[in-house]
Amino acid sequence: MQNDLIAALSSSRLFREMAPEMLRTLACGAVTVSAQAGEHIFHTDEPATAFYLVKEGQVRLYRPNHEGNEKVFQVVSPGDLIAETAMFAEPCRYPLSAQAETAVCLYRVTRTTLLDLTRQSADFAMQLLATMSARIYQAVNRIDHLTIGNASQRLVLHLIDLSREQRSRRIHFPVSGGALARQLNIAPETLSRQLNHFKRTGLLDGRNRDWVLLDVDGLHRSVGLPPPSRKASEAWHDTDLGSDLFGCCNFR
Amino acid sequence: MQNDLIAALSSSRLFREMAPEMLRTLACGAVTVSAQAGEHIFHTDEPATAFYLVKEGQVRLYRPNHEGNEKVFQVVSPGDLIAETAMFAEPCRYPLSAQAETAVCLYRVTRTTLLDLTRQSADFAMQLLATMSARIYQAVNRIDHLTIGNASQRLVLHLIDLSREQRSRRIHFPVSGGALARQLNIAPETLSRQLNHFKRTGLLDGRNRDWVLLDVDGLHRSVGLPPPSRKASEAWHDTDLGSDLFGCCNFR
Repeated sequence: MQNDLIAALSSSRLFREMAPEMLRTLACGAVTVSAQAGEHIFHTDEPATAFYLVKEGQVRLYRPNHEGNEKVFQVVSPGDLIAETAMFAEPCRYPLSAQAETAVCLYRVTRTTLLDLTRQSADFAMQLLATMSARIYQAVNRIDHLTIGNASQRLVLHLIDLSREQRSRRIHFPVSGGALARQLNIAPETLSRQLNHFKRTGLLDGRNRDWVLLDVDGLHRSVGLPPPSRKASEAWHDTDLGSDLFGCCNFR
Repeated sequence: MQNDLIAALSSSRLFREMAPEMLRTLACGAVTVSAQAGEHIFHTDEPATAFYLVKEGQVRLYRPNHEGNEKVFQVVSPGDLIAETAMFAEPCRYPLSAQAETAVCLYRVTRTTLLDLTRQSADFAMQLLATMSARIYQAVNRIDHLTIGNASQRLVLHLIDLSREQRSRRIHFPVSGGALARQLNIAPETLSRQLNHFKRTGLLDGRNRDWVLLDVDGLHRSVGLPPPSRKASEAWHDTDLGSDLFGCCNFR
């Protein structure tokens, strides 16, 4: 198990520059955890005593609300970390709930192990600080997008974010249409109508969760946004932090 | 100047546990900067080479948008830090613009000085990580609130956040009504109508930027929200990080 975990950790962006003996210490403190689809790994606001690395399957990170709706912040896959940037707060609680989307197998590493190693290595602490600084930048972008009054503009900005994140004009919605509508604060019927409108006017093509952006400048123009800039925002995507609009909150 | 700055730094939450010799090093690398009302300290996306501590006056942190509107994320006052959590990213750019709201005097500390000190002290690095972890938690809360479809609910949650932040049922809006409406993604006339409705029904009282929450549970009930919980969310407010809904982005 340990060798598999060391290999998995050293291929993740956060841990790949960590010294081998530190990786071994991290792996020593780990156990594997399995869950069936629908089972919870942890709930929002529970004391956070460990972070996870996904070995197999997919995990939904969501926030429950009082109406019984779930707002899905992110769906994570093998190789992704869960909740590691949440580990440093005091008191330390999970900001989101994590639920197995499929049958999953996860590595569980205790918070204490991570904190001890961070204290020991200034390089690793700086790497963590850089990751978290970038995540806060992403949060600003996301909050900026969410306070755009116009639903069509929010949708276009999100399509562009997905395209940058997936490094392709062919995009796949990581969550269902209903969950996406909730993330963007758009009525589900408006989302579907707007996608169909873009399709009819030749700006994109596709169906369900799979779409191709045919005309990026045209998408911007059609909702009254200026054409996308090529400057700072792209540099951030190069840091490979995952989804811009929703990635700030997945704590991986 | 140095003694003033050391006193100011050691009264800020982030630096108050820093060793005296480190505080002196930080202060040695600092200069004072003055600006008239309306002048910019820095602009969004400019390379970030320094962070600031407000000595006198107020600074608006905002994000310009393509329609020429400004979305004010925060107004900071003497004793507040600006952009220090942005310093650790690579490439390092300011996520927001900072503009003098009044005549201001600021201490400017270079990024290099901060990074050098962080490398030297594991305690300080852990303190920074805790602050940033909490900020990301706040960002999740804020994004959660912003994706609530109902404008009245967003307003009530924001009033409660302000009340917790200001530790009083008497609250002062730190920004104008128009700026607040933009922050909450509510039309200005809706904001004003809703506040008057709450006033008429005896749930709050006040005018302009000054209000008193007369019935917190009633405010929740009137917009269909469950009564406020007393648990984790309050623990976070005790960490004194500033405004919950908008504080995550002021980088102080």
